[in-house]
Amino acid sequence: MAEIVECVPNISEGRRGDVIDRIVKHTADGAEVLIFDVKPDADHNRTVITMFGTKKGVRDAVFRLFEATLPQIDLRVHKGEHKRMGAVDVVPFIPIRGSSMEECIALSKEVAAGVAERFSIPVYLYELSATNPDRENLANIRKGEFEGFPEKIKDLAWKPDFGPAEVHPSAGCVAIGARQVLIAFNVNLNTPDVTIADEIAKKIRFIGGGLRYCKAAGVALEERKIVQVSMNLTDYTKTPIWMAYELIKDMAERQGITVLGCELIGMAPSVALFDVANYFLHIEDFRYEQVFEVALAEKGM
Amino acid sequence: MAEIVECVPNISEGRRGDVIDRIVKHTADGAEVLIFDVKPDADHNRTVITMFGTKKGVRDAVFRLFEATLPQIDLRVHKGEHKRMGAVDVVPFIPIRGSSMEECIALSKEVAAGVAERFSIPVYLYELSATNPDRENLANIRKGEFEGFPEKIKDLAWKPDFGPAEVHPSAGCVAIGARQVLIAFNVNLNTPDVTIADEIAKKIRFIGGGLRYCKAAGVALEERKIVQVSMNLTDYTKTPIWMAYELIKDMAERQGITVLGCELIGMAPSVALFDVANYFLHIEDFRYEQVFEVALAEKGM
Repeated sequence: MAEIVECVPNISEGRRGDVIDRIVKHTADGAEVLIFDVKPDADHNRTVITMFGTKKGVRDAVFRLFEATLPQIDLRVHKGEHKRMGAVDVVPFIPIRGSSMEECIALSKEVAAGVAERFSIPVYLYELSATNPDRENLANIRKGEFEGFPEKIKDLAWKPDFGPAEVHPSAGCVAIGARQVLIAFNVNLNTPDVTIADEIAKKIRFIGGGLRYCKAAGVALEERKIVQVSMNLTDYTKTPIWMAYELIKDMAERQGITVLGCELIGMAPSVALFDVANYFLHIEDFRYEQVFEVALAEKGM
Repeated sequence: MAEIVECVPNISEGRRGDVIDRIVKHTADGAEVLIFDVKPDADHNRTVITMFGTKKGVRDAVFRLFEATLPQIDLRVHKGEHKRMGAVDVVPFIPIRGSSMEECIALSKEVAAGVAERFSIPVYLYELSATNPDRENLANIRKGEFEGFPEKIKDLAWKPDFGPAEVHPSAGCVAIGARQVLIAFNVNLNTPDVTIADEIAKKIRFIGGGLRYCKAAGVALEERKIVQVSMNLTDYTKTPIWMAYELIKDMAERQGITVLGCELIGMAPSVALFDVANYFLHIEDFRYEQVFEVALAEKGM
């Protein structure tokens, strides 16, 4: 498989293991796609499914995901800490190898049209597939959640991009779109005071005037009695890992607090780590093609 | 090609471009192998050829290399700064992907036997293929060079592993073996005084009591008026890049000298750079499988 797209649907069930298993099993039951990871969260009552495949492979898997989820998840009886508006809540497509962002945007629209037609679910295109700037941010679309949507959807400004302007009774609605690889990267600080992580997070994130492709929040790691600046880097090619790391480190050290270590949650592209290595070593004229695996892949070997 | 072996033969010609071209063209003319790089050095009068392929692909390419080189290079009229004992001087095989070190050792012995039989050239197995510890180090085998070998080869201790105990009149003899990936990595220091690079090199290298898999020398970069600690890291899994870098940096800074940057000569495996990124970020519980490309390769995608 030369062409690889990642797809990371989130479903609104994180407690009933048998239900999650059934949904995952049916979703996986097709060609040109592999499910890499299934992460249920009981507090959030939500499961994140990570799969990779060809465009065709992930497209068909998403249709199977809806088939399997709809009879199993009823949002009218769903409770959980995480905000949600659909049984299948959000479906992002991410270009990984041999497929462009444009192709992933086209794929997301094809899937959105198919989901709307086959399952009568209102679909909002989000992130890079969004049809207007209000819909780029998922949080903006989801505002009001499942319970508020019957009212919100009547507003012409919130007419779905595909499907009926009426919420599906049990499955709500869904956001589908294409986005860049997102790197979830946390920096742990040697202090029990969460206000320090909070303050740093507020300064380094985009909405606070900080790094363009950085979302951040302070988190207390209660058991370890330390705190963490928890981040999503939404475009590592422009806001690289090392830049966020160095800024946090400097701001912490200025207060006499040291960095204990970092966490990489989930996955990252190899070049994001090559950039880190190159930053710290400052290798003159470094080219990715100096890495065996990159050079071999370029020659199709 | 799931299986990839690297082969980096050195031939004793770095000046006559037409001769080098002819040799490379004939070497490349076969299946399951690609020549990635050809680096002639006029001062050394020597060319380094880098190729990748299956075991079969690189084996056949090496036979073609000897076929093309023997009529073209006559060591009796060869002069150059680099020590040499053969027209084809040394042929290392390096496991890169889907092939083990054991397989590369076996491959080197198969090629050694073939070269000896087809071309009547004495062959010494070296590095990890060596049949006794005296032959592990190429410099040890090569001592005396082409001119001294007619005498040296009579010594029973230097009986070739394959082929006649008599030097080939024009092509000399050759060392063939399997080795680990070698990373050529240099650290540039902000001083014109080469004795400082020399002193650091002597301390960090294995023979000086330093790092186990590190060879090092001080080099003056005359034009830039700076110096460099030039290294070969012969097993990056045990002597990682960051360790050599940090040691040199500390030793330089203690003398008030800063590191200007580094050079990666040729290629390195991706994991060697992941290790650098992980060292500087100290990512808790980092696993290579968190890199997309690694995870996908593991699933054969």
